[in-house]
Amino acid sequence: MDTFFNPESVAIIGASNSPFNLGATICRTLHEYSSFDGRVYAVNRKGEPVHGCEGFVSVTDIPGDVDLAVIITPADVVPSFVRQCGEKGIGHIIIESAGFSEGGAQGRAMQEEISEVAAECGIRIMGPNCLGVLNARNQFCCFYGIFEDSFGAFMSEPGSVSYIIQSGGIVAVVLESLVKDVVKANKAISIGNKSDVDEADMIEYLNQDDTTDVIGMYLENIRHGRKFLDVARGVRKPVLVFKVGRTDEGALAARSHTAGMANNDAIFEGACRQAGVIRVHSISELHSLPKIFTSMPPLRGRRIAVFTNSGAFGGITADLLVDAGLEMASLSPETQEKLSRTGQIFNVSNPIDLGPALSMQTFLDIFDILLSSDEVDGLLPIPSLWHPMIIDAIGELVRKCRHYRKPAAIYTPNAVYRTVSYRDEYQVPLFESPEEAVKALQVSHQHYLYLLRKDGTSDFEHSGEFAWNGNPCQGVA
Amino acid sequence: MDTFFNPESVAIIGASNSPFNLGATICRTLHEYSSFDGRVYAVNRKGEPVHGCEGFVSVTDIPGDVDLAVIITPADVVPSFVRQCGEKGIGHIIIESAGFSEGGAQGRAMQEEISEVAAECGIRIMGPNCLGVLNARNQFCCFYGIFEDSFGAFMSEPGSVSYIIQSGGIVAVVLESLVKDVVKANKAISIGNKSDVDEADMIEYLNQDDTTDVIGMYLENIRHGRKFLDVARGVRKPVLVFKVGRTDEGALAARSHTAGMANNDAIFEGACRQAGVIRVHSISELHSLPKIFTSMPPLRGRRIAVFTNSGAFGGITADLLVDAGLEMASLSPETQEKLSRTGQIFNVSNPIDLGPALSMQTFLDIFDILLSSDEVDGLLPIPSLWHPMIIDAIGELVRKCRHYRKPAAIYTPNAVYRTVSYRDEYQVPLFESPEEAVKALQVSHQHYLYLLRKDGTSDFEHSGEFAWNGNPCQGVA
Repeated sequence: MDTFFNPESVAIIGASNSPFNLGATICRTLHEYSSFDGRVYAVNRKGEPVHGCEGFVSVTDIPGDVDLAVIITPADVVPSFVRQCGEKGIGHIIIESAGFSEGGAQGRAMQEEISEVAAECGIRIMGPNCLGVLNARNQFCCFYGIFEDSFGAFMSEPGSVSYIIQSGGIVAVVLESLVKDVVKANKAISIGNKSDVDEADMIEYLNQDDTTDVIGMYLENIRHGRKFLDVARGVRKPVLVFKVGRTDEGALAARSHTAGMANNDAIFEGACRQAGVIRVHSISELHSLPKIFTSMPPLRGRRIAVFTNSGAFGGITADLLVDAGLEMASLSPETQEKLSRTGQIFNVSNPIDLGPALSMQTFLDIFDILLSSDEVDGLLPIPSLWHPMIIDAIGELVRKCRHYRKPAAIYTPNAVYRTVSYRDEYQVPLFESPEEAVKALQVSHQHYLYLLRKDGTSDFEHSGEFAWNGNPCQGVA
Repeated sequence: MDTFFNPESVAIIGASNSPFNLGATICRTLHEYSSFDGRVYAVNRKGEPVHGCEGFVSVTDIPGDVDLAVIITPADVVPSFVRQCGEKGIGHIIIESAGFSEGGAQGRAMQEEISEVAAECGIRIMGPNCLGVLNARNQFCCFYGIFEDSFGAFMSEPGSVSYIIQSGGIVAVVLESLVKDVVKANKAISIGNKSDVDEADMIEYLNQDDTTDVIGMYLENIRHGRKFLDVARGVRKPVLVFKVGRTDEGALAARSHTAGMANNDAIFEGACRQAGVIRVHSISELHSLPKIFTSMPPLRGRRIAVFTNSGAFGGITADLLVDAGLEMASLSPETQEKLSRTGQIFNVSNPIDLGPALSMQTFLDIFDILLSSDEVDGLLPIPSLWHPMIIDAIGELVRKCRHYRKPAAIYTPNAVYRTVSYRDEYQVPLFESPEEAVKALQVSHQHYLYLLRKDGTSDFEHSGEFAWNGNPCQGVA
C-alpha cells in the first residue's frame, strides 16, 4: 500500500498539452511545484512531453519499472488503460476519472470491468472518481487542478494528522484550514468510489505509519462494515470521522456523489463506539480537533476549571461543558484561598474570573494552582488578548500543561479571523469558538476512556517531564 | 431613552489623569477618536481636564445642562455621585463600576441604595457593571478601554443591526466580527446588572429606532418575564437571542457575572416562541445570522435547492436541512430538463452539481431556473471559488434573489479565514460554514411564519422589483 504514497516512478495517463487538460496539471505540480524526486511520465496519444515530464504513447513503452499509474481520461477508455498497466506489470493505479458507479448503469458496468481486470492482474486500484494522494513528507501529490500557491501552503511543513476523505472538495477545505493551524497535514487521501482500496485499508496503512499521530475521515458510506470495525478496533491513534448520510435525504445526496450504498446510521454509531472511533459533526471539527491530541496531554477526568479575564464566558462554557458530559470542577475553600492570594481576582470559584489584571506572575500562579490541584482534570482558559503579555502567558500555559499532564483547550474571545491570525503567528493551540474548545476536551476524554478500557489499566505511565510529545499513545503502559 | 444614545452633553465621573484610569479612556475615545460633537466633561477630585475634556470637581459645578452622566469609580462612592447627579438635574446615568449585586450582600445593598436615590430623583439608570452604549451613527461611545484601531473599525460605517448584550467581553467579539461582514453594527448596549433599564426597555427603544432593522441579544437572565414577553410581542423586526444559563451550572456561572436570578429555560423557550423571538445558540450565530435578514428576502416555504460545483456538499447540507426542519426541494422532470439544457451538469436532481463548468451564462441560467421555479422556496448555493468569475456570479445571484423574492444562503467551501476575506473584499453575504447557512435559512423561515401568523395573512405584497431593501417587514400587507 505504501507504493501509493512513496512511488519511485509514476505514469500520468491522459496528461497531454491540450487546453484544460487535467492530467497536465498533475505533471505541472510534480515537475514544477514539488520537490518530489521520483520519475514522472506523461502518457498521451502523441507521446509528447508535458510540463517537463517525458512523454509516451503507452505505459508499455516506458523503459524500466513503473510503480504507480494515475489515470485521468474519459471513463470509457479507462478499462483499456488498466489492461495496459497490467501488461506493464504496474501494481498500483489511481483512477481519478469520474463517470463510473456514481453515474448510472453503464458506469457501474465499467467499474465492474475494471475491478475484474485489476483482480486478474493483481493490481490495487484507488478510486475511480477521486483525487488520489497527497503526501507532505515527499511532496508526492497527484491531485489535479492544484495551484502553485495552494501547493506551497499545503506542503510548507509536514505535520502529523492524516486524512481519508471521500471527496476532493472537502480535502481542499481541510488542507487550506490546516495551513493556519498548529497541526499540519501529513497525508491526505481522496478515495472516491472505493472500487478496491477503501477506508479500512487506509486506516490500516495510516495506523502503521510512524509519521501519522491522528487520523481524520470524511465518509459518504462504509464499504464493508465488518472490515471497517475489525481494522478500527486495532488502532490506538485517535480516529475522527465525519460521516454524512445520517438522514435519508443526506444518504441519497451522498449516493449521487460517490455512489456507495447508504448505511444505517445507528449501526454505524454502534460500530464507532465499539471501535473507539470518534464521531464529529462538521468539516470544521475535522480539522480543528486534532490539535487537542497533538499539542496536549489527554483529559483523564471530567472536572474542568474555566479561567477567564472576561467574565461572560463562564456561563456560556458551563452550559457547553454540561451538554458535553463534562463537569465544572468544584474548588475547595483551600484552593480558592490559594487563588485569592495570587492577586486581585474577581471570582475565585469556578469559573475563575481574573478581571483586567496584568501581572504575568498572577497568570502563572493561577495556572500552577489549577493544574496541580487534584480537584481539576483539565482547563478551559478564555484569556482575552488585550495585551501582548497574555500571548506569552498562553505559551507558558502550554508548557505547564505538558508538565502537569493535564490539557487546556484554549479559546481567545475574538473574531475568528483574529484568532486564526494569532494562532498562526504565535503557534499556540487556539480554538476558534467556545463550542470547539469544549468539543476538544470531550473528544480527548473519550479517547482516553477508550484506551483505558482497551488496556484494562487504570493509570498511564509517566516517563519524564516531556515524555508527552504529541502522540497520545506514547507513555501508555 | 434616546438620551442614552444621543446626548448633547456628557459628564464622565471618575475620569482623571491617574495611571490606568478607566474613565480617562472614555474621554480619550470621545475627544480623540470619535467625531461625536456633544460636550464631554471630566469629573475628578482635582477638577483637572482629561484628554482635552474640561475638568470639574463635581457635576454640580458644570455650567449649563448635562444630559447624561457616566460613572466609573470604585463602587462605594457611586451612591454619592448618583445623589450629586440628582442635584444637578441629570436624568440619565450609566454606571460602569462593578462590585454591586454580582458581588455579594454589601454590593446588593449599595445597588438598592442607588435604585432608591434614582427613583426619588426620577433618574434612569443603565448598569451597574456594564459598558453602556455605542452608537455608530453619531460615534457616541462610552465603552472604557477601547483602542483607536478597534474604535475606527467598529465605527467605519453605521449598519442596521443593533445589540443588547449583558456583557462587555461579548460586545467586543460581536463588533469585531461585524467589521468583516456585510451587515454592520448600528448600536450596541451593554446592560450589566440591569438595576433599572433592562432588556425589555432596550427592545422597545430599538423597535422604534428607524435605523435598526435587526435586533441581537446576549442575555444571562431576564429581569421581568412578563414585561419581556409583552414588549417582544409588539416587535416585527427579527429579534435573535442567545441566552446562557440553560443548565444549572451555566445559570450559576452567569449569576457570578451579572447577578440575575436564573430563569427556567423551558419557560423562556415558551416565551420566545409566543413572541416570535428567535433563539440562537452561540456568539457566532448572533453576529452571522443578521445578514440573512438584511441582504435577502424571507424564506416563504421549506423547499430548498442545493446548488454546488463541488459535489461533496450535497450530502452534508441535506442532513443539515432535514435536521433544521427544512426540505430538499423535489425537482420535476421538466425543471431537470431545463437544467440539463444549460450546459454540462453532473447532477440535475437536487443537489444540483454543476461540476467544474466555467460559463457565467450557465451559472445565471441555473439561478433563473431554480429561483423562478414554484418547486423551490430558497437556495443553498455552495460555489467553490476557484475562479474569479464565480465571485461575479455570486453578485448576480444576490440581485436575482431580490428580483425573484427568494433567499439564498451562500457558503463558499474555503477555510474560514478565506471566506471572511472574500466576504469583506467583495461584500457578498457569505456564511462561514454549511451549518451557519442552513441555520440562516431556518431563522428566515421562522421569522416569516411568525409574521404570517401575527398578521393572519397568507401573502406578502410585492411593490416593485427592489421593494425589498433589508427590512423584512417592508412590503408586508
